[in-house]
Amino acid sequence: MKRILTGDRTTGKLHLGHYAGSLQNRVKLQKEYDTFIILADVQALTTHFERPELINQSIYDVAIDNLSVGLDPDNITMFLQSKISAIAELTVFYSMLVSVNSLRHNPTIKTEAKQYGYDDLSYGFLGYPVSQAADMTFCDADLVPVGEDQLPHIEQGRKIVRRFNSLYGKGKIIVKEPQALISNTPRLIGLDGNFKMGKSLGNAIYLSDTAEDVNEKVKSAITDKDRISIKDKGNPDICTVSKYHQAINHSEYENICEMCRNANIGCTACKDLLSKKINLLLAPFREKHVYYEEHKSKVRDIILEGSKKANRIGNETIENVKKAMNIYME
Amino acid sequence: MKRILTGDRTTGKLHLGHYAGSLQNRVKLQKEYDTFIILADVQALTTHFERPELINQSIYDVAIDNLSVGLDPDNITMFLQSKISAIAELTVFYSMLVSVNSLRHNPTIKTEAKQYGYDDLSYGFLGYPVSQAADMTFCDADLVPVGEDQLPHIEQGRKIVRRFNSLYGKGKIIVKEPQALISNTPRLIGLDGNFKMGKSLGNAIYLSDTAEDVNEKVKSAITDKDRISIKDKGNPDICTVSKYHQAINHSEYENICEMCRNANIGCTACKDLLSKKINLLLAPFREKHVYYEEHKSKVRDIILEGSKKANRIGNETIENVKKAMNIYME
Ligand code: SF4
Ligand code: SF4
Repeated sequence: MKRILTGDRTTGKLHLGHYAGSLQNRVKLQKEYDTFIILADVQALTTHFERPELINQSIYDVAIDNLSVGLDPDNITMFLQSKISAIAELTVFYSMLVSVNSLRHNPTIKTEAKQYGYDDLSYGFLGYPVSQAADMTFCDADLVPVGEDQLPHIEQGRKIVRRFNSLYGKGKIIVKEPQALISNTPRLIGLDGNFKMGKSLGNAIYLSDTAEDVNEKVKSAITDKDRISIKDKGNPDICTVSKYHQAINHSEYENICEMCRNANIGCTACKDLLSKKINLLLAPFREKHVYYEEHKSKVRDIILEGSKKANRIGNETIENVKKAMNIYME
Repeated sequence: MKRILTGDRTTGKLHLGHYAGSLQNRVKLQKEYDTFIILADVQALTTHFERPELINQSIYDVAIDNLSVGLDPDNITMFLQSKISAIAELTVFYSMLVSVNSLRHNPTIKTEAKQYGYDDLSYGFLGYPVSQAADMTFCDADLVPVGEDQLPHIEQGRKIVRRFNSLYGKGKIIVKEPQALISNTPRLIGLDGNFKMGKSLGNAIYLSDTAEDVNEKVKSAITDKDRISIKDKGNPDICTVSKYHQAINHSEYENICEMCRNANIGCTACKDLLSKKINLLLAPFREKHVYYEEHKSKVRDIILEGSKKANRIGNETIENVKKAMNIYME
């Protein structure tokens, strides 16, 4: 079985965007692949170092969200990034093999720096591709599912890995070069039409939201603003509700778009339809969510067990890496 | 007893410059301080990542040089940087707390980059002050003996430590802010007058050199070039031999300078005097050197024992750090 590495930064509860963009796929992939889920708390620090409480709370939130959507704790390996010393050690080794300039020119770094409004990058933020290379390789991942926008990171990581192997491998592969598994799911936007979703923006539906939350939030979603009366023909292409239908209610999407264009459905009905679909999707997740919230020590055990396993693998990797680098001593 | 952290990059055997600049002082300090000696192999990688064999060989060379000059293995803690995972972990945490720009403007980074001829810095090279902050704090060092030129590094490291404590300490000190113990010993130059000393330059006297090596090398040293005949008055200020007298033969230094200025000593005699002094200094080191070369497994045990102890301390530090950062899970 090939191994995939996937996971989330622990900067808050997961929302429908995460589900549509990766969790949904992750649930399917777990049957075909040995699935490693990283709870990326160190990565979260690159942008949220001033909010340790949020990161701490989010470790459990993100873990429970993953378990609630159907990831099977008996089959996957879920681990906490900060517990894996091999990741930190590889990050340090890899940091010698990439230039500051090439990191600065990485398009993903540039875009994200702009998104966060950074002009004075932290050293850790700039090193994202380096530590991601460490995440991918400490556990010999074969595949890393990513969105198209993350490709430059993965490519830079792969380049580091190739450089490492060519420098220290003497013809042998010491660390495995992972492949990107590109997901073409379009990124889900916020209910207010904003590209970014977040708690502070109030424009995201969380996987743990109640049915009432969902109804309320969907009601507030921005539609085609030019459609004033129910008799006006609508344009679903500029409506956030239709984007959600596309993501969550794919089988009815084309039909709804046509009805909208012909003024055969009103926005209220269209939203009701969406709320129902979302709640149908979330209902089983909520049940599991309640269970895990009530059994947090189980969640902790899952993470600790996973971290132990990840550390076993990571320590082996480090041993091989140090032997190849000629700094192994025992 | 206060703790000092000191040590050497493992990029080659140590020479008289190391002795005059730090080892000599280190031997004295071990009586007053709990002395931690870092064999900085990871740091060595920042500049020598393409020469792993050299780094490996140098781990033993540097350890033996330290032991030979009189560091007492029963009193000091000598450890291998790459074995201490806490250093890598702290490096990653600290990397969030310093900006790329402030690292780029660090005068020591600038000078050293120029020395190595880098215009395209590696990410790891730029992060020197970050990882040095990790070296200093993983073991709660009180003092770090450094040359004046290293002060900007230490200051930047201290700033990181203060930022860490103010962000996560809630009024408590989580990681100890070390003080620099500034050494005012002038830096010893190469026998050819070159600022840099090195094996490839052939201008350094190694602590493990034989008496013949020393005689040979001192003979080749660059003196006052304008002093052609023994009757010419010399200028010791522009003579490398006099610099060595100053460092190694301090009590006779003033006298030799005066004799040189008055043409009362010839360069050959002056060099003979220096060779004798150096060989007198090195003789007991050589004896110990032979012993440790013949008992390399003892050296290994000293390093492994020291690393074990350093890891015990480092793991405690990491536990406290993670608790303060709210990412501790057990
Ligand atoms: S009918 Fe639906 S798709 Fe059309 S504008 Fe209204 S909410 Fe949007
Ligand atoms: S006498 Fe000594 S100090 Fe003077 S120039 Fe000659 S070697 Fe140098």
